[in-house]
Amino acid sequence: MTRFDDYLEQINARLQALLPVSDYDAPAVCDAMRYSIAGGGKRIRPVLLLESCRLCGGNPQDALDFACALEMIHTYSLIHDDLPCMDDDDMRRGKPACHIAFGEASAVLAGDALLTEAFHAAAACAFAKQHPDRALEAIALLASLAGAGGMVGGQAIDLQSEGQAVSLSRLRLMDKLKTGALMKAACAVGAVLAGAEKAQRDALERYADNLGQAFQITDDILDVTSDSQTLGKPVGSDAEQQKSTYVSLLGLETAKQKAADCTAAALQALATFGDEAAFLRKTAERLLKRTS
Amino acid sequence: MTRFDDYLEQINARLQALLPVSDYDAPAVCDAMRYSIAGGGKRIRPVLLLESCRLCGGNPQDALDFACALEMIHTYSLIHDDLPCMDDDDMRRGKPACHIAFGEASAVLAGDALLTEAFHAAAACAFAKQHPDRALEAIALLASLAGAGGMVGGQAIDLQSEGQAVSLSRLRLMDKLKTGALMKAACAVGAVLAGAEKAQRDALERYADNLGQAFQITDDILDVTSDSQTLGKPVGSDAEQQKSTYVSLLGLETAKQKAADCTAAALQALATFGDEAAFLRKTAERLLKRTS
Repeated sequence: MTRFDDYLEQINARLQALLPVSDYDAPAVCDAMRYSIAGGGKRIRPVLLLESCRLCGGNPQDALDFACALEMIHTYSLIHDDLPCMDDDDMRRGKPACHIAFGEASAVLAGDALLTEAFHAAAACAFAKQHPDRALEAIALLASLAGAGGMVGGQAIDLQSEGQAVSLSRLRLMDKLKTGALMKAACAVGAVLAGAEKAQRDALERYADNLGQAFQITDDILDVTSDSQTLGKPVGSDAEQQKSTYVSLLGLETAKQKAADCTAAALQALATFGDEAAFLRKTAERLLKRTS
Repeated sequence: MTRFDDYLEQINARLQALLPVSDYDAPAVCDAMRYSIAGGGKRIRPVLLLESCRLCGGNPQDALDFACALEMIHTYSLIHDDLPCMDDDDMRRGKPACHIAFGEASAVLAGDALLTEAFHAAAACAFAKQHPDRALEAIALLASLAGAGGMVGGQAIDLQSEGQAVSLSRLRLMDKLKTGALMKAACAVGAVLAGAEKAQRDALERYADNLGQAFQITDDILDVTSDSQTLGKPVGSDAEQQKSTYVSLLGLETAKQKAADCTAAALQALATFGDEAAFLRKTAERLLKRTS
């Protein structure tokens, strides 16, 4: 079993254990939470968190509940993002979006509950009892990067930019917050939990920043070059919604080059870790070449 | 200045300091957060938190950021509760609801951001650095009582009960989660931050449980007996929506008696604190006699 598969198995099993069971009289919200968490997805963020912890000398086991918390936050953001009043997307990861499957109200509540349970998982885990100082720093970091100055801020800029021509610098800021913030959270939280030195954490944050940008550019490219079956969601939606993307602003070839440049910069940031960073290097290369 | 006014002034000033400033390109979300926080409200939960901390021998100053976190969680829940897909209320505290003033998408995001910033405020405060173990326990408690097994669970039951006849025991469970959970969080978090003994915390939780029930019954009574100007929201909405309430299930007089009984039980729970609990006693009596 590869290390990636091993991480994946641990994350998926632990997510199942952490999510609430519908033992009360309103099962719809618990079912909706489990539906969206089980919806698949690449689990990139929690894997990055575990590996960042390992790379800085920590035990990935110690970071598992934080990794799950990060995936819960990512999943809540997708549920709310798909709502009719937001992006109004009916499909997510090849399945009906949460609000299509469970109704809008349950989707709002499922998102709220996932965000709340994420912080419960982080604060209540065994490692937090052993290293409360590191756990608190990690929780503050997670909240800061997920909040108004991070991911939610990025979604707000996205909303406000709808139907408008957007400059490349604004697109970059939006993606840095909307996509990059949780990538950065993955690497930074992993480092903090491991008690990493500042240089290690800085290197991982540079990696995450470039990885996040390459990831978003690749998303924009796939919306043009892929097909909906491979992607699990409609293609061409950016053009249809007249959204500014890296492809619309730079052209397809330049966008591809930029994604490759960002990936190269991400690899470069890992130099300080030597051969130990092979897994993170492979992850960056794999994400650049992904087809969905 | 009374202790209540003193607490109120501290809470309101600190909330202003903790909320993000719209220094980026999407001010709508920050403005919406501030709008809803500034919307008034009785600040009962944060006041209870500060006083519970003091009563257990702690310094209310140490608990201030947790008190603000609790108020942010309460406010986010009101914003999401008022959304068209939830209760669809246009007015809140005598002003247009957040989604009326800022649009639905910004209201969803403002709620998400308030919930996220709440955990940031709690994890990043100065007291958390001094007592990381207590802070972590308090964060876990807050998340647990606000999540699927607490407040959000109560809202889910509420949703599922719409247009249905509801038994008294189900109404009690719903209110215990929807309203009671954050009241309990206020008292329990205050106690935990002060390093309270188990007996103290148990007594405060009994107080909170009864106070929460009296509070909800009084809400149901005011929906029948008050006028919309005094209340700041439409009256008679429960009957209009054919919602089961303590008044519809018990009748007005029995509901009044039950609110008084719960208040008496709340006072009784404070016996162990002696005269020091005068403030909490007065709070319970004031809430029973409130007109809005």
